[in-house]
Amino acid sequence: MKKSALLFAILGGSAQAALAQSSTTVYGVADMGLVVENGSAAGSITKLTSGVGYGSRVGFRGTEDLGDGMSTKYVLEAGILMDSGASAQGGLAFGRQAYVGLTGSPGSVTLGRQYTPYYWTLLTVADPFVTGYAGTATNLMANPGRANNMALYTTPTIGGVTGELSYSFGEVAGNITASRASGGSLGYVNGPLVIKFSFNNATNATGTDNAKNLLLASAYNFGPVKLHAAYAQNKGLGTTNTQDGLIGVTVPFGASRILASYVAKNDKSGANRDAHQFGLGYIYNLSKRTELYTAYAHISNKNGATYIVGNGTELGSGNSAFNLGMRHFF
Amino acid sequence: MKKSALLFAILGGSAQAALAQSSTTVYGVADMGLVVENGSAAGSITKLTSGVGYGSRVGFRGTEDLGDGMSTKYVLEAGILMDSGASAQGGLAFGRQAYVGLTGSPGSVTLGRQYTPYYWTLLTVADPFVTGYAGTATNLMANPGRANNMALYTTPTIGGVTGELSYSFGEVAGNITASRASGGSLGYVNGPLVIKFSFNNATNATGTDNAKNLLLASAYNFGPVKLHAAYAQNKGLGTTNTQDGLIGVTVPFGASRILASYVAKNDKSGANRDAHQFGLGYIYNLSKRTELYTAYAHISNKNGATYIVGNGTELGSGNSAFNLGMRHFF
Amino acid sequence: MKKSALLFAILGGSAQAALAQSSTTVYGVADMGLVVENGSAAGSITKLTSGVGYGSRVGFRGTEDLGDGMSTKYVLEAGILMDSGASAQGGLAFGRQAYVGLTGSPGSVTLGRQYTPYYWTLLTVADPFVTGYAGTATNLMANPGRANNMALYTTPTIGGVTGELSYSFGEVAGNITASRASGGSLGYVNGPLVIKFSFNNATNATGTDNAKNLLLASAYNFGPVKLHAAYAQNKGLGTTNTQDGLIGVTVPFGASRILASYVAKNDKSGANRDAHQFGLGYIYNLSKRTELYTAYAHISNKNGATYIVGNGTELGSGNSAFNLGMRHFF
Repeated sequence: MKKSALLFAILGGSAQAALAQSSTTVYGVADMGLVVENGSAAGSITKLTSGVGYGSRVGFRGTEDLGDGMSTKYVLEAGILMDSGASAQGGLAFGRQAYVGLTGSPGSVTLGRQYTPYYWTLLTVADPFVTGYAGTATNLMANPGRANNMALYTTPTIGGVTGELSYSFGEVAGNITASRASGGSLGYVNGPLVIKFSFNNATNATGTDNAKNLLLASAYNFGPVKLHAAYAQNKGLGTTNTQDGLIGVTVPFGASRILASYVAKNDKSGANRDAHQFGLGYIYNLSKRTELYTAYAHISNKNGATYIVGNGTELGSGNSAFNLGMRHFF
Repeated sequence: MKKSALLFAILGGSAQAALAQSSTTVYGVADMGLVVENGSAAGSITKLTSGVGYGSRVGFRGTEDLGDGMSTKYVLEAGILMDSGASAQGGLAFGRQAYVGLTGSPGSVTLGRQYTPYYWTLLTVADPFVTGYAGTATNLMANPGRANNMALYTTPTIGGVTGELSYSFGEVAGNITASRASGGSLGYVNGPLVIKFSFNNATNATGTDNAKNLLLASAYNFGPVKLHAAYAQNKGLGTTNTQDGLIGVTVPFGASRILASYVAKNDKSGANRDAHQFGLGYIYNLSKRTELYTAYAHISNKNGATYIVGNGTELGSGNSAFNLGMRHFF
Repeated sequence: MKKSALLFAILGGSAQAALAQSSTTVYGVADMGLVVENGSAAGSITKLTSGVGYGSRVGFRGTEDLGDGMSTKYVLEAGILMDSGASAQGGLAFGRQAYVGLTGSPGSVTLGRQYTPYYWTLLTVADPFVTGYAGTATNLMANPGRANNMALYTTPTIGGVTGELSYSFGEVAGNITASRASGGSLGYVNGPLVIKFSFNNATNATGTDNAKNLLLASAYNFGPVKLHAAYAQNKGLGTTNTQDGLIGVTVPFGASRILASYVAKNDKSGANRDAHQFGLGYIYNLSKRTELYTAYAHISNKNGATYIVGNGTELGSGNSAFNLGMRHFF
C-alpha cells in the first residue's frame, strides 16, 4: 500500500504526497561581476559576467538516513550564466554535478557526473583563488574538471588520511578503453596541514593515446596567513609535456581576505612555450552569505605561448584581466 | 491592493512575497546504474547510465484548495541524465510532464505536456517493470509516451470505474487533422483486480495517415504474487500491423521483490518480423526511499527483426542487457 | 572554520549544510490556454498554448538581511513552455530573469539578465493586459523586453518619485559601443495616480546605428475603473519611425475584472504602414491564486502592414486571436 502510494506520488499523480518527508534542500550561488580583459589582438573588452568567483548555480540536494551510520545522498546542480540566462557548462541543464550514492563507515560510492579527484584537489587545496576570479590557477594548469559516467569511491578518513578512486566509462561500443578516464587522490590532514596527491588519466576517443596529469598540493594554515604550494606534471595527448608550479597565500583579517598566487608553466617540449601568472585578489564579507570581490591577474607568455586570463566561468580573451563584483550564497 | 501585491511578487519585485503561502513541493528521482549491453554489431558496451529504472528527475508540484472539493493542481517535471548533466527527453528542460488543471467531483481537466492514457496504462497496470530496467515492455511494445498540447479529462471514479479522454492539438495552420493525437482509457478496480483498456490515435504530419494503438491490460494481486497480463494491437503508419502479448509477475517478499515478464511481438505484415523478450529483475529496498536493483533481459528476433533491450531512459544497443544500480526517491 | 564549512557545503560535499538558514523561495506561474488565431495566409490555427496570460515559469528567489536597512537579493527565473516542456525565451534555461544585487536606503543595484525599464513601464503601468493575452500592447508597440549583461540602478522612492538607470554591456572586443543598450525611467505615484516616463536605446552589432524608444505611460485608479493611457515613439534602426498610442481600462467587480484597450500605430515613414488594435479580456478569480481568462483582439493593418495578434508567450500568426484558459500562481 505504501509502495503504490509512493509510486503514485512519484509519478506526479498526487500532491498529497507520500513524499511529504522529502528533505530536499535548494541551494545556490549568485555571482555577477565586472570583467575587463586586455591583451587580446581583437582589443580589450568590458563585460558583466556571471560566476567570476564561483560559478552561479542552483542545486538540489538531500540525504536519507539508512541506519547503521549509512545514508543515501544526491546532488543535482545546474550551472547558470546569469548574464544571459543560459545554462553554463556548454548548455548542460545540470552540468555542474549530478550524482547519487551511498555513504557510511566503509566510505562512499557515488555515481554520475562528478568532479575529478584532480580538480577537487586543485580547487580545495592548491589554489588560493579556489579556481575562480582572474587569478584562477586553471588559466595555466590542467583542469580535467568534471567527468561523465563516473563511479567515485571515497575512503573513510582514518588518522587524517583519505583516498579517492574514480572511473569514468568511455561508453564506446566494442572498445572499453576509448574515451574512458580514471583518477584518484590520497590526502592527509593534520591540524593546520593539508597534503594531497592526485592524478587523472584520460584516454582519447580511439583509445590510442592517454593524457596523464599528476598534482601534488599542500596548504598550511598559520592562522594569520595560509600558504599554498603545488606541483603538477602533464603528459600527452600527443607531445604535450609540461610542468606547473604554484605558490600562493590566503591572508584573512577581520571581514576581509587577500588572495595571491604565482603560477609557472614549464613547457618541456621543443617549443618551450613557457608562461607565468601573477594573481591578486581581495574579498570582503558583507555578511555571512554575501561577499564583494576584486581581483587582477597577468600572464607573461614566452616563445609564442598563448595562455589567457579567465575567471571562474569564462575562459577569457587576453593576458590580463580585472574583476569587480559580488557573490551571494543561498 | 492584494492584487497588485501579488502581481508585484510574481514579477519578481519582492521577496517579502505575498506568495509566502506557496505550497510548492520539490521532489524527484536520482537513479544511476551499471548497464552492460550485448548483441550489437558494433560490439558490447558497458555504461554508467541515468534512469535505468525510473527516469532521473526533479519536479515541482502543488495544489490549491478552491473549496467545494475543487482544487487546482500543477506539475513541472524536468528529466535529467545524471550521467552527463544533460536534459533527458531529447534536451527538453521540463520534458517529463508540465501541466496545470482543475480537479474535483466532476473529474479533472489538465492542460499541457502529459502522459498518454495508453502509456499510463502500460506503466501502471501492464508492465511489472513499470517500463523501466532491462525488462521494460517498451522494448517491444508501442510507447506513445507523452504528448504535447494535450487536454486530458479524467472522470471521477464511480464503482471502481474511471475513464480518461485526451486530445493533443496538432497545431498545423490550415490543417486541424495534421499531427494531432487522441487517446483514452477505461479502467476498473475491484480489490485485488485492475483491468484497463486504452487507445492512442496519432495522425502524421500531413494528416494523411494514422497510427492506432489499442491496449488491454490487467493485474491481479494475490498477495504473495501479483499477476500481469496484457494484449496490444498496433496498426499504421504505413503497413505496420503488429500484436503484442505480455504476461508477468511481481513477487514481493520482505524488503525485496522479484519482477519477471515475457513479451511476444507478432508481426502480422508479410515480413513476419516476430520477436519475444524474457526479462527478470530483483529489487531490494534499502529504506523507504532508496532501492538497489538488478535486472536482465534478452530478446529473440525472428526474420530480421531488430528489437533491442533498453531501459527506463536509454533505447539500448543490443538484444540483451544487464543492469545493476540504485534509485533514490526524494 | 565557518568559512570552510560554508565552502564545503556550497561545493556539494555536505547535506548537513552550513546553509540550513537558506531562505530560498520557489515560486512560479502555470498558465495554459486555448488559442484560436485567424487571418494568416496559411490558414487559421487552434492551439493549446503555455503562458497565454503570464509566461509559465518556475523561479528561485531570496534575500539576506545585511543590517542597516541593506539587503542582498537574487532572482533566478526559468521560463517554461508547458505545452511542449521546452524552455521559453528561445531555449534559455533561466531566460526570464537572473540577477543578484544590493538594496537599501540609497537605492538598489542589480546585475544580470533583467527587464528593461521601458518594458517594465509598459508591463506595469501602460498595458491593462500586463503584456499578456490576445490584447497585449506588445503586438503593436516596441518591446525591448529583457537585456543581457545589465547593471540596473533604482533610486529610492522619495515623495512618490522613483528613477531607474540601466546599462547593458555589448561585450564586443575592441568596440565598446557595439551591441550595448541603455535605458531608464522616471515615475511618480500619488494615491490613485501613476505616471512613468521611460526610454531604451539599443545599438546595433557594429555600433553604427541606434534604436531609440520613448514611452510615457500613466494610469489612474478611480476605484470602479482604472484608466490607462500611453504614448510611445520609436526611431531607428534604419528608417524606422513610428508613434504608438494606447488607451485602456481595467474594470474590477467582485471576483472578476474586464480589460480593454485600443492601441494605434502611426508609421511616420513613407510607407505609412499604420495599424490599430482593439483588445478585450475577462478574468475570473477562482481563488487567490487561480484565475480563468478569456480574451479577444483584432488588428486592422493599413498599406501592407503585417502586425499580428500574439499573446504573453507566442508571437501569433494572424490579425485576430481568441484565448480561453487558466492561470495559477504558486
